[in-house]
Amino acid sequence: MIPRTSPELMAVARGDRPADLVFTNARVVNVFTRSIEQTNVAVFGGRVSGVSHHKIDAKQHINLDGRYLAPGLIDAHMHVESTMMMPRHFVSVASPHGTTGVVFDPHEIANVLGMPGIRFLMDASKNLPMNTLFTASSCVPSSAFETSGASLHADDLAPLFDDDRVVALAEMMNFPGVFLGDQAVLSRVKLGLERALVDGHCPGLTGASLGAYVAAGIGSDHECTTAQEAQEKLALGMQIFIREGSAARNIEALVSAVTPENASRFCFCTDDRHPGDLHRQGHIDHAIRKAVWCGLDPITALAMGSLHAADHYRLPDLGAIAPGRQADLIVFDDLFDIRPTSVYFRGEHIAEHGKMLNRLDDADYDLDDSIARGSVRIDPSFNAESLRIEAQADSDLIRVIKADPHQLITGEQHMRPTIAGGHLVADPSRDMLKIAVIARHGASSGVGLGFVTGFGFTGGALASTVGHDAHNLAVVGSNDQDMTIAVRTLQESGGGQCVVVSGEVKALLPLPIAGLISDQDAPSVIAQQDALLAGVREIGCPMEDPFMPLSFLPLPVIPKLKLTDLGLVDVEQQRIVPLYVNENDGPKPTA
Amino acid sequence: MIPRTSPELMAVARGDRPADLVFTNARVVNVFTRSIEQTNVAVFGGRVSGVSHHKIDAKQHINLDGRYLAPGLIDAHMHVESTMMMPRHFVSVASPHGTTGVVFDPHEIANVLGMPGIRFLMDASKNLPMNTLFTASSCVPSSAFETSGASLHADDLAPLFDDDRVVALAEMMNFPGVFLGDQAVLSRVKLGLERALVDGHCPGLTGASLGAYVAAGIGSDHECTTAQEAQEKLALGMQIFIREGSAARNIEALVSAVTPENASRFCFCTDDRHPGDLHRQGHIDHAIRKAVWCGLDPITALAMGSLHAADHYRLPDLGAIAPGRQADLIVFDDLFDIRPTSVYFRGEHIAEHGKMLNRLDDADYDLDDSIARGSVRIDPSFNAESLRIEAQADSDLIRVIKADPHQLITGEQHMRPTIAGGHLVADPSRDMLKIAVIARHGASSGVGLGFVTGFGFTGGALASTVGHDAHNLAVVGSNDQDMTIAVRTLQESGGGQCVVVSGEVKALLPLPIAGLISDQDAPSVIAQQDALLAGVREIGCPMEDPFMPLSFLPLPVIPKLKLTDLGLVDVEQQRIVPLYVNENDGPKPTA
Repeated sequence: MIPRTSPELMAVARGDRPADLVFTNARVVNVFTRSIEQTNVAVFGGRVSGVSHHKIDAKQHINLDGRYLAPGLIDAHMHVESTMMMPRHFVSVASPHGTTGVVFDPHEIANVLGMPGIRFLMDASKNLPMNTLFTASSCVPSSAFETSGASLHADDLAPLFDDDRVVALAEMMNFPGVFLGDQAVLSRVKLGLERALVDGHCPGLTGASLGAYVAAGIGSDHECTTAQEAQEKLALGMQIFIREGSAARNIEALVSAVTPENASRFCFCTDDRHPGDLHRQGHIDHAIRKAVWCGLDPITALAMGSLHAADHYRLPDLGAIAPGRQADLIVFDDLFDIRPTSVYFRGEHIAEHGKMLNRLDDADYDLDDSIARGSVRIDPSFNAESLRIEAQADSDLIRVIKADPHQLITGEQHMRPTIAGGHLVADPSRDMLKIAVIARHGASSGVGLGFVTGFGFTGGALASTVGHDAHNLAVVGSNDQDMTIAVRTLQESGGGQCVVVSGEVKALLPLPIAGLISDQDAPSVIAQQDALLAGVREIGCPMEDPFMPLSFLPLPVIPKLKLTDLGLVDVEQQRIVPLYVNENDGPKPTA
Repeated sequence: MIPRTSPELMAVARGDRPADLVFTNARVVNVFTRSIEQTNVAVFGGRVSGVSHHKIDAKQHINLDGRYLAPGLIDAHMHVESTMMMPRHFVSVASPHGTTGVVFDPHEIANVLGMPGIRFLMDASKNLPMNTLFTASSCVPSSAFETSGASLHADDLAPLFDDDRVVALAEMMNFPGVFLGDQAVLSRVKLGLERALVDGHCPGLTGASLGAYVAAGIGSDHECTTAQEAQEKLALGMQIFIREGSAARNIEALVSAVTPENASRFCFCTDDRHPGDLHRQGHIDHAIRKAVWCGLDPITALAMGSLHAADHYRLPDLGAIAPGRQADLIVFDDLFDIRPTSVYFRGEHIAEHGKMLNRLDDADYDLDDSIARGSVRIDPSFNAESLRIEAQADSDLIRVIKADPHQLITGEQHMRPTIAGGHLVADPSRDMLKIAVIARHGASSGVGLGFVTGFGFTGGALASTVGHDAHNLAVVGSNDQDMTIAVRTLQESGGGQCVVVSGEVKALLPLPIAGLISDQDAPSVIAQQDALLAGVREIGCPMEDPFMPLSFLPLPVIPKLKLTDLGLVDVEQQRIVPLYVNENDGPKPTA
């Protein structure tokens, strides 16, 4: 791409030299004025060289016949690991949906592999037809209540900011660490403020605690779930990322908070986006369509999906159709149902009617991925016995995690255990399945054991090496044998997600890259995930995608009762709790 | 001031430790939401520690009884040299008007003294009760048609950006240099883009030339004089600084361009502000009052005068009343006539009812100013003979500069010369005075000579070492003797402005610092300027302040006919022109 200050670009902009390309009769979306103007847009050397009603001399003309031309879309915050695809395969799905920029937080791979994982994902994101920006993962580990694969301090993270692609310290999830004044946490925030800016993550935080979090310099939040929450955070100066991902979907609740006056302080993100949703529903284009459907002005929605993210991250080359900015452009027909038909990245036509025009040839992204393979290192002594839970007294109640198919938050339910042969066992008849979280980073042989209700299947096991945030291996099942086979299966595949029933592997989505990411292309990953979910239905699980709640069951930063390799965690009390409830505690049994 | 990430600030923000100060019952102007809320604002360690409806524990309470509390005001662009005061004296006048932040472009002193001048002004701006930011002067010299005191290239300017106070490359006035692709100019723009951002200056630029200028990365403009011009620039993504200075006053023309949607892309600046205007009319508070009087919503005006400037320059510590930001605050009574009664800088009460509470003691700003003195170095051979113009032929017309009391733009008028003793002489009866621009940087003995109409006085001379942008000595007069005395007077005072009549110095404003700035305090400078203008009236000059047009008469970047030490410059044709007009050229005589 030509530099902004090149005399050639000046010559083209003046009209003394032909542009590469001109779009004529375009309804151009101006995100600065939030208006639409029918005009011509010229491109040279990958940048917009002019916007003018006058005829522009160019080598190629594209008459848009009144179709809309808008800036390419930007996802202000996502974990590409959630798509289970390598960046180039993610791009092959997201680009046709109009995404030309994304801010990756490599939080998941960082928790498995540390700095080498972050560097690997940054290397794997080079030379793609998308602006791939990064934030420096701030919470590795995100909790002391689980065993992660790495630990990153401010000194470890500092060199990342020397890379121009690193635009912020990533979401500071440890908000109590911030407002309670934890020095190690604050030193990471300080680093982020000195080198760039700091993104936030503070679901439900309010009042003085929120004020303290903002005082420390946290500049954004993508965890709002109500308009009131967004308004409180906005009033303190936070940039609000409205999130519409696969797990969390907040547009419907938040759109009413956007006004003409404050819209510049809003953008969109997905945070987590599953491969099938990305392909079938879309990416930021989907968020925009939904926001418009919920009543947001479409031009405002487009500005939130482009300029406002670029402004937040101080990226003056992106986010708008204006002279000198990158020619990242989308063409669409209907302002109230924005579906990009053509997508341009730095002036190059990369996608048309939902398809990439050029295959991202694997050979061009030849990357040594050995650093990221072999990350599922379970203690060799692990076997079915490791899943056994000795019965203590049959009259005692046990703590059971209550899973919700659509929420990361869990509940705590107290149930009488079922005992067989002196051991506590799963009891599918009461929807009480056994769950185990098995350390898989080679440093620990920990196996956390417990029970969960909500998965509702009667026979078999589901297992996943995606298990936020430490990504230990999580397995839920009706019997120890299927659970053990599921664990072995993922160990052999180097990570992934599987369904096992009656000793047989029904479906397997291998994720050999850090146990999080496939090495296959997008159609393969989507097909494998579809097969996995078909396997889920086969074993009678009523959840649409039980791997979502399963992968978040270990996450000890979201209430209430969670299970990690260290045991059951009461997140509200911030302590490990025993399986057995003291009968003097808690409510009476509900089942 | 306490760091944002200090655990003490967190403790106060949480409410676990008392704040230093709390404002209760304040009508707080929220510039993020553009709304007003009656609430309490706490301050600790120089920062806002909380904004809350709840009672806040603090060592000191100030009940505002419903008065307004807004963020301190920011001037997005000014040349402090235009106030003729050293920064500490400027602050003593501007602070009581609510200014807590200013972005200085040391363009004038840079053109006299180069880098040492910039460094001197930066040193002189330390430890003041105001956020003094700087931009790196981009146009030294600003034109090849005059002899300046220094020349600064990209390599010279680069080290400035290592200072945290330097927030941008200053206004790139050489807009033809940009859009015509001049490599030296573009290399300065490149430096600015790499290290920060680049401010613009492009009066009247439009269409493809403006597009090219923006394409190069120029991000702002403060030269708009019509709403249409502002709208065109805004649509290309420029930040628009609405200027209300002493010379150029653009609010009335521009306010109608501001809408709820685009207001975040506007801020205020003064560019040039004379000491008396600053003291009597005000600073950004004056701009806000005038904007409101012209119909702008007062909360929007306050946001433009605070947050929007801070956002433009990426200063997340400034511009709003929000946790963690600096407690730079103003108190006022009437939203529709905003006159700060109390001013706080980093939580310290610095001004009350128009007066500084603590004198900025000169001893605290003890600075070696020898570098900046003795800058008026006129060739020793200069004398009255140097001002003589030989007559060539009495039938020829000469080019006469047409001065406008309120505009920097001049006209060109063709008049018959008056000849005495074989020389062209001033003819006050036809308002045709002689003007000379004398090189004063020691490197040249150049004296540019010409005639001007518009000053309208009958006897005497006015002289100034403020003569944009090279700041050579400009003198206008009815006779060579008074002109020579005026030159000698300024030579002896080391610079300044004076009025001479009948061989007597009627008034002198000495500006010994670079020939631009006084070494006296604000009341002295204001009194001296008042005396100077009284002297002007005494010689019968009808202009309110003839030193304004006089100081801009040499400026060869603003049309049409100008005079520098190199001679008459036709700015539109970008060439030196002779005094005598070819009679076949131009219009018939008008006088």
